[in-house]
Amino acid sequence: MKKVVTFGEIMMRLNPPNHKRFSQADTFEVTYGGAESNVAALLAQLGMDAYFVSKVPDNPIGEATIRHLRKHGVKTDYVLRGGERLGIYFLEIGAAQRPSKVVYDRKYSAISKVDPEEFDWNTILEGASWFHFSGITPALGENLQVAVENALKTAKSVGVKTSCDLNYRAKLWSTEKAQKVMSKYMEYVDLLIGNEEDYEKSLGIKTENLDTNSGKINRKAYVKVGKEVKERFGVRSIAFTLRESISASFNIWSGLLVENGEAYFSRKYEIQIVDRVGAGDSFSAGIIYATLVEMKPKDKIEFAIAASALKHTIPGDFPVMSLNEILKLFYGGISGRVER
Amino acid sequence: MKKVVTFGEIMMRLNPPNHKRFSQADTFEVTYGGAESNVAALLAQLGMDAYFVSKVPDNPIGEATIRHLRKHGVKTDYVLRGGERLGIYFLEIGAAQRPSKVVYDRKYSAISKVDPEEFDWNTILEGASWFHFSGITPALGENLQVAVENALKTAKSVGVKTSCDLNYRAKLWSTEKAQKVMSKYMEYVDLLIGNEEDYEKSLGIKTENLDTNSGKINRKAYVKVGKEVKERFGVRSIAFTLRESISASFNIWSGLLVENGEAYFSRKYEIQIVDRVGAGDSFSAGIIYATLVEMKPKDKIEFAIAASALKHTIPGDFPVMSLNEILKLFYGGISGRVER
Amino acid sequence: MKKVVTFGEIMMRLNPPNHKRFSQADTFEVTYGGAESNVAALLAQLGMDAYFVSKVPDNPIGEATIRHLRKHGVKTDYVLRGGERLGIYFLEIGAAQRPSKVVYDRKYSAISKVDPEEFDWNTILEGASWFHFSGITPALGENLQVAVENALKTAKSVGVKTSCDLNYRAKLWSTEKAQKVMSKYMEYVDLLIGNEEDYEKSLGIKTENLDTNSGKINRKAYVKVGKEVKERFGVRSIAFTLRESISASFNIWSGLLVENGEAYFSRKYEIQIVDRVGAGDSFSAGIIYATLVEMKPKDKIEFAIAASALKHTIPGDFPVMSLNEILKLFYGGISGRVER
Amino acid sequence: MKKVVTFGEIMMRLNPPNHKRFSQADTFEVTYGGAESNVAALLAQLGMDAYFVSKVPDNPIGEATIRHLRKHGVKTDYVLRGGERLGIYFLEIGAAQRPSKVVYDRKYSAISKVDPEEFDWNTILEGASWFHFSGITPALGENLQVAVENALKTAKSVGVKTSCDLNYRAKLWSTEKAQKVMSKYMEYVDLLIGNEEDYEKSLGIKTENLDTNSGKINRKAYVKVGKEVKERFGVRSIAFTLRESISASFNIWSGLLVENGEAYFSRKYEIQIVDRVGAGDSFSAGIIYATLVEMKPKDKIEFAIAASALKHTIPGDFPVMSLNEILKLFYGGISGRVER
Amino acid sequence: MKKVVTFGEIMMRLNPPNHKRFSQADTFEVTYGGAESNVAALLAQLGMDAYFVSKVPDNPIGEATIRHLRKHGVKTDYVLRGGERLGIYFLEIGAAQRPSKVVYDRKYSAISKVDPEEFDWNTILEGASWFHFSGITPALGENLQVAVENALKTAKSVGVKTSCDLNYRAKLWSTEKAQKVMSKYMEYVDLLIGNEEDYEKSLGIKTENLDTNSGKINRKAYVKVGKEVKERFGVRSIAFTLRESISASFNIWSGLLVENGEAYFSRKYEIQIVDRVGAGDSFSAGIIYATLVEMKPKDKIEFAIAASALKHTIPGDFPVMSLNEILKLFYGGISGRVER
Amino acid sequence: MKKVVTFGEIMMRLNPPNHKRFSQADTFEVTYGGAESNVAALLAQLGMDAYFVSKVPDNPIGEATIRHLRKHGVKTDYVLRGGERLGIYFLEIGAAQRPSKVVYDRKYSAISKVDPEEFDWNTILEGASWFHFSGITPALGENLQVAVENALKTAKSVGVKTSCDLNYRAKLWSTEKAQKVMSKYMEYVDLLIGNEEDYEKSLGIKTENLDTNSGKINRKAYVKVGKEVKERFGVRSIAFTLRESISASFNIWSGLLVENGEAYFSRKYEIQIVDRVGAGDSFSAGIIYATLVEMKPKDKIEFAIAASALKHTIPGDFPVMSLNEILKLFYGGISGRVER
Repeated sequence: MKKVVTFGEIMMRLNPPNHKRFSQADTFEVTYGGAESNVAALLAQLGMDAYFVSKVPDNPIGEATIRHLRKHGVKTDYVLRGGERLGIYFLEIGAAQRPSKVVYDRKYSAISKVDPEEFDWNTILEGASWFHFSGITPALGENLQVAVENALKTAKSVGVKTSCDLNYRAKLWSTEKAQKVMSKYMEYVDLLIGNEEDYEKSLGIKTENLDTNSGKINRKAYVKVGKEVKERFGVRSIAFTLRESISASFNIWSGLLVENGEAYFSRKYEIQIVDRVGAGDSFSAGIIYATLVEMKPKDKIEFAIAASALKHTIPGDFPVMSLNEILKLFYGGISGRVER
Repeated sequence: MKKVVTFGEIMMRLNPPNHKRFSQADTFEVTYGGAESNVAALLAQLGMDAYFVSKVPDNPIGEATIRHLRKHGVKTDYVLRGGERLGIYFLEIGAAQRPSKVVYDRKYSAISKVDPEEFDWNTILEGASWFHFSGITPALGENLQVAVENALKTAKSVGVKTSCDLNYRAKLWSTEKAQKVMSKYMEYVDLLIGNEEDYEKSLGIKTENLDTNSGKINRKAYVKVGKEVKERFGVRSIAFTLRESISASFNIWSGLLVENGEAYFSRKYEIQIVDRVGAGDSFSAGIIYATLVEMKPKDKIEFAIAASALKHTIPGDFPVMSLNEILKLFYGGISGRVER
Repeated sequence: MKKVVTFGEIMMRLNPPNHKRFSQADTFEVTYGGAESNVAALLAQLGMDAYFVSKVPDNPIGEATIRHLRKHGVKTDYVLRGGERLGIYFLEIGAAQRPSKVVYDRKYSAISKVDPEEFDWNTILEGASWFHFSGITPALGENLQVAVENALKTAKSVGVKTSCDLNYRAKLWSTEKAQKVMSKYMEYVDLLIGNEEDYEKSLGIKTENLDTNSGKINRKAYVKVGKEVKERFGVRSIAFTLRESISASFNIWSGLLVENGEAYFSRKYEIQIVDRVGAGDSFSAGIIYATLVEMKPKDKIEFAIAASALKHTIPGDFPVMSLNEILKLFYGGISGRVER
Repeated sequence: MKKVVTFGEIMMRLNPPNHKRFSQADTFEVTYGGAESNVAALLAQLGMDAYFVSKVPDNPIGEATIRHLRKHGVKTDYVLRGGERLGIYFLEIGAAQRPSKVVYDRKYSAISKVDPEEFDWNTILEGASWFHFSGITPALGENLQVAVENALKTAKSVGVKTSCDLNYRAKLWSTEKAQKVMSKYMEYVDLLIGNEEDYEKSLGIKTENLDTNSGKINRKAYVKVGKEVKERFGVRSIAFTLRESISASFNIWSGLLVENGEAYFSRKYEIQIVDRVGAGDSFSAGIIYATLVEMKPKDKIEFAIAASALKHTIPGDFPVMSLNEILKLFYGGISGRVER
Repeated sequence: MKKVVTFGEIMMRLNPPNHKRFSQADTFEVTYGGAESNVAALLAQLGMDAYFVSKVPDNPIGEATIRHLRKHGVKTDYVLRGGERLGIYFLEIGAAQRPSKVVYDRKYSAISKVDPEEFDWNTILEGASWFHFSGITPALGENLQVAVENALKTAKSVGVKTSCDLNYRAKLWSTEKAQKVMSKYMEYVDLLIGNEEDYEKSLGIKTENLDTNSGKINRKAYVKVGKEVKERFGVRSIAFTLRESISASFNIWSGLLVENGEAYFSRKYEIQIVDRVGAGDSFSAGIIYATLVEMKPKDKIEFAIAASALKHTIPGDFPVMSLNEILKLFYGGISGRVER
Repeated sequence: MKKVVTFGEIMMRLNPPNHKRFSQADTFEVTYGGAESNVAALLAQLGMDAYFVSKVPDNPIGEATIRHLRKHGVKTDYVLRGGERLGIYFLEIGAAQRPSKVVYDRKYSAISKVDPEEFDWNTILEGASWFHFSGITPALGENLQVAVENALKTAKSVGVKTSCDLNYRAKLWSTEKAQKVMSKYMEYVDLLIGNEEDYEKSLGIKTENLDTNSGKINRKAYVKVGKEVKERFGVRSIAFTLRESISASFNIWSGLLVENGEAYFSRKYEIQIVDRVGAGDSFSAGIIYATLVEMKPKDKIEFAIAASALKHTIPGDFPVMSLNEILKLFYGGISGRVER
């Protein structure tokens, strides 16, 4: 049971049920999530001592967020209370040719307006084995860019390994800004995670011959990106999620890990989607876990892809699953036969 | 923003949730819809000044119907209040090999017993650019056959373009009756819409070598039907929806427009179905809109098929969607990737 | 309308809605079911005089069970009241690579602790045409092994035909115990039903070259099993369900009947699954019905597979469907087109 | 276990949940009920062999109605299948100063258009101990006035006791018509049931000094009505429900039985209302039951009022309760303390 | 049908169902409302040409707000689109000794950051008979204080009557600020509305001997406040809502109108509460309507109190009711008897 | 923040929504609770370091229980995993004259079959300030009688204060058995809690002139019981909950603390009930908290009664509330006015 720390924003998620449009709904399903909290939630369920670092308002909505985290095992000791509001995102869950749609209402959230000095990273990272953040955190503002930098430097200084999910969000910052900030962090990052778009938008490294709409993937091009990241930024482990998006209801999902000059592709899962939000975060958690328990490279990517394949079947942002369930898929149990 | 008028019945729709059978349900989802009101709803959302003409009872159920129309932008100035009841249809939403099932309880509805003289078409069509009805309206009774004829003649006399979705319903009238009535209307119709069964049952023009169950479509046969309609009835634009029904959960959907002696086939969409009721109506609205904004024939059919493909993913009869969403699909955005 | 008797346990089924995990749910859907009650429910709906024999507690939960049976037409005259509790099973409905998961809480149920003398089989089977049980009933305990034996012997003595769905459940007994008990029953069984795993675990007859995960089926191997059962146990009709499990969301489903030295394979259905629990029971009910109305072998297997294919689309354990619906599929109506 | 027969209409009831108005609801709760079916349902649960006589359409909606009856123990052997539709009533459940509101959509229902010859009363009433109907049945049309008369005459001829709940409905017929028809039936009626308005509107016997809005009741005036009914029509037992309606949420409820020249008032219940539809029907069932088991007059009225007080707490038309629960209240258990 | 204009903020309202606390809920009921939009909604339903003036974001959430307004008849021609977000308020619906609780998340909303020049009051008020706002609008910021002042001056200049519901909100501004701003508006106000707290906090006029917790009201003290307002600010009509809050579940509700030196008290309603949010707004709409149709003072206050008593029984902010329903209560129909 | 330990059973609670009967429901609301876990939940929310000691099965249902505890702040370090099943209780929520009804299905639960040696009380109680249990725990079996005795003796030996809620349950043990066991524990108990029935059934001390149905309470009699308990068993603090049960919907609630020869009665709350299960547990938690923070006797009883009055308004077993909310009621804020 190792201490793992993730840092970022947790939001209220509101989605109409049963594929309804916003204007059709008179109820919303309510849950709470965000990239780094989702990662912490899976790591906690896999047995790690997972801490999420953030700030939520000191009101009953903030309190509900805390209880949601705690329920799924995430330690909330370092979640600050204060600020004006909790970020919200509205989600319409698509189907077939209708994409899922996110409307952000996250501006002015408590975490986005935090003073970086509110976080005492020496205390937070004491005894930790791992620190994780995603590109969303620095995208929330310059104060958070400083906070991430403080965290990374502290991590490096006390020997905590780090990972970064690039997670580029066009609504939060420009590619220019993103590349400037993210590049600077790379020297502190041990494990880098993203999809083809993330690598291009956040680091300026373009995957060749990419045709997102066709859903086909060019394996060589990805390997090339991985090698370029290694060369330019010195990151040791570079992981990709490879989504072939046939429709909003059906995707083919696999992953790639480039490590030690080798490229390890995972098997592919053909997935009828229940809820794909947070799949990338489960991938991150999976590969962090696999690294912490010292799996081999091929196993790391298979474990991470199995975890994230499972997430596509689970409602809400949080990956509610167990180690055994991931391992069963890892070992090839894809038939979906009833377990009784 | 052009004035468009549609004429027909709007019903209460009651369906068990989550694929339940009628006898299993202790709640029904309630919405309101009907072929011509569905068309008006999409046209209103695309920016047209869309009026629906009908009659609903002067009680809280009729009032709920009015509010539903108004919510989605349909003008209800010409909806009469009175009569005994609102038509109802019960719907079981099927899956895989179990078809969706409609139980009609629409007899004796206010609109079905209207006196044709209650509608003053000169007022209703004043300043209008388009008039639309489907074969369901005259199928409701001889009074409505007169009302449709009055509307069409007025439209012709004041230069309003017209469209007709054949929409044959075996539970409402015989093929003999349908053909007798519908044929008579053709001279007033500028745009004719239907599937292979509609053309056969309503106009007596059979598609050759049709094998509904196989799901395969014979493109030449459809083109031939289009030409025959043109020759026999003089309709300028003949549109088809082409449904390859693999199962109740999965269809392949495309369309054909025969115009000026040319046949324009749309691309095909492979659709995991959420709710396919009203897809044909969204096709009608799409092609009417495309005609009103003067798209080219190929674009008209592509736009209409994109709109109706999207409808398959939206619960309820009403096509709750925006122009931008249709255009995105029109331009090829089929991957269903999350938009955020 | 023939009298048919089934014997076994009915449980409360509790499942989170909408693919939620147990810990995510704050409501459970409640229904009641169990192998033999599911069989009785379909036979009742097909017009048989179907009696279910069991024991439920004499409290409001037992009463709710009785009302559920009665609602769907099952006669409850021989359901005893008493004992400590109703068995429960918790069900998570999976999707894609996440299997559905059953957590049993059925120990100490009223039926599992019944005294075999509480059942007066001469009265129960009087005038009956058929008796059915599954391997789950004797797996519940030695008292029930005696009860089943009593029932079978009485059936034989009064000329009632019998069927047995092997239905092996590893959580209830070992393969050794199962084989010892089930083998003994075979001399009384006219129709035997199971999948490849059941034949192996309950009777020790292994299907060769079986690869459950691949989803491919080896037709010859199944025929061989059928013949071996015939030779070793003398059962006249041996039926198989053949499930190719691509994922928890999508299966290919067919069946095989070995009779008179011939093997009759059904057509295959490709099924997007709504709820597959009880599909095997609908198969049993289908083949019992087909036998009672004296269909030919090929029709028997087609009818049974059509019934069980439909069951995959219906929520809950009980197969809520009509004879007409099964016949429509039996005659090839697989397109799933809306019926109106 | 005596055979009891009730005759009338059963409707689908659709109500918005949680006090919503019709236009606010996107789901309706669905149940089935009607005066005489509600009576049958309670009698069945009290252990009687209760048959409901009616006609419902031969479609899945009619089938759902049958299953609902059967679930709660009502025998449906004499429910005819056919006709065009099932009657529906829409219900808004009020609160405080907002009354509950019923919108009827029952015209043209299968039962309302039945041919009286379709009912073979000699068969239906064979072996019966009791026949019950309410004033709603003859109010549905002249065909049903004949059917009721046939039933009553047959009952008299074969020695079956009868009861009539006056149940005046202004939307179905005029007071003139009602009085003409109902008066004619009185010679066959052994037990008459109603509230003050029913006696006035259906039989022309006015309660003096009645002030419905004040909620106060004038005991002497009721006794006088009872005696007048006895004198004019010769009915032996005359029962009243006495509702003091403080608001839609809170009522005071009691009853009166006039028999053998004596007036028996029940105790009063102060009731916070969950669902008061069908309370009068539970009163009818209670007093029929009490008569069949030969309670004394004072006990009859107490039992009936206890049953109907309980009904106010139970959602839906059907009085889902047990003999023990009524007896507990009958014996004074009004504290509502948790039973565990 | 007179044109009435109201001006203010409309928010998304999110509340847990069934009295749940925020942290217990995994669904929220979604509706839209705000003081001035609620007033417009009732006026529209009473037959007025009601316009709501505001600003909502140009995204699907803003669009849902527009559709909600339109559904209930409110004209949205003057609702601007733009800005960053829609204000939200979270609501826990209390019971007994637990008060309902509002958590505001309305800061930075589109309307709160509007430029007052975006509203062209000459156009908006053209042909209008009435303008209404509440104290919440200027409490949102200085820009809105200017906008309200512009609206009032334009109204005065073109002869539009005006009303103001004081609606003091301590979370939005201080009493000092409120009094400074609101006092300035009084010269333009024809009808002033509030409860005892509003008059004290917004205008500095204290009701004597007030004991909010006891629920008793001192009639003389209220009359004195009314006269003082008249003297100090020259407002012609001063209306009070008088809430005796026994608990969150049960209130006694009445009103007072001071006009022409006379005090008119309404009758009192004892109310079991379903949803009391917006009751004050229904009072405002009621008294505006009564003024527009020129009722006498006593009738004005009775009509307004009847409308607002009804609102307590209707879920959501919007007062979904009809003129007839209010009139029925106005004429004394308080018994809550079922209407059928 | 003091360490508090409670010991007992936590069950799954399943209740039909909206006052439905068991046989009417097709969903159950799911939550988890039990006397001692409810106490721990409130203490945790009041800021104590609250540990719940129990045993739940090592399956996803046990896991859901753990997450529910953790969500509301209860420490689960001492919850053992194993055994066969989680206890369940089915609950129908009554109204008016219909009592809420509990059907227990708790036999054979993991905790009820625990070996007392599985609990290491020296570890569990290390550093603790308080230990609490209720009479339900020893009622589950002799193993638990031993476990409670072990806990009490350890508590005494290490100076941990203890409280006992008598909580007599007739379905679990006889009064003879209860009195024999509970009497023996009294020497270790510092604070004793119960209602009049508990004192009689568990300790044999009868309250005089008690008339449970009338709802009136005889204050002197309670004081006498308190003194007798003090004399016979030497318990220092004796607390009573005093429920005047007018109906299942409406209760009057108060409390009494007898301490140092003085009797302290609390104020009375008139409560419209949402969910009264667990109200006694909130009383226990309240008085434990008040004792730990060293309130005066009168304040202790007022605080405990305020906490438990609030619980009546909160769905589920767990008292989801904050210290501030209790204090507000403690200081007299009973008006239930909206807080915004």
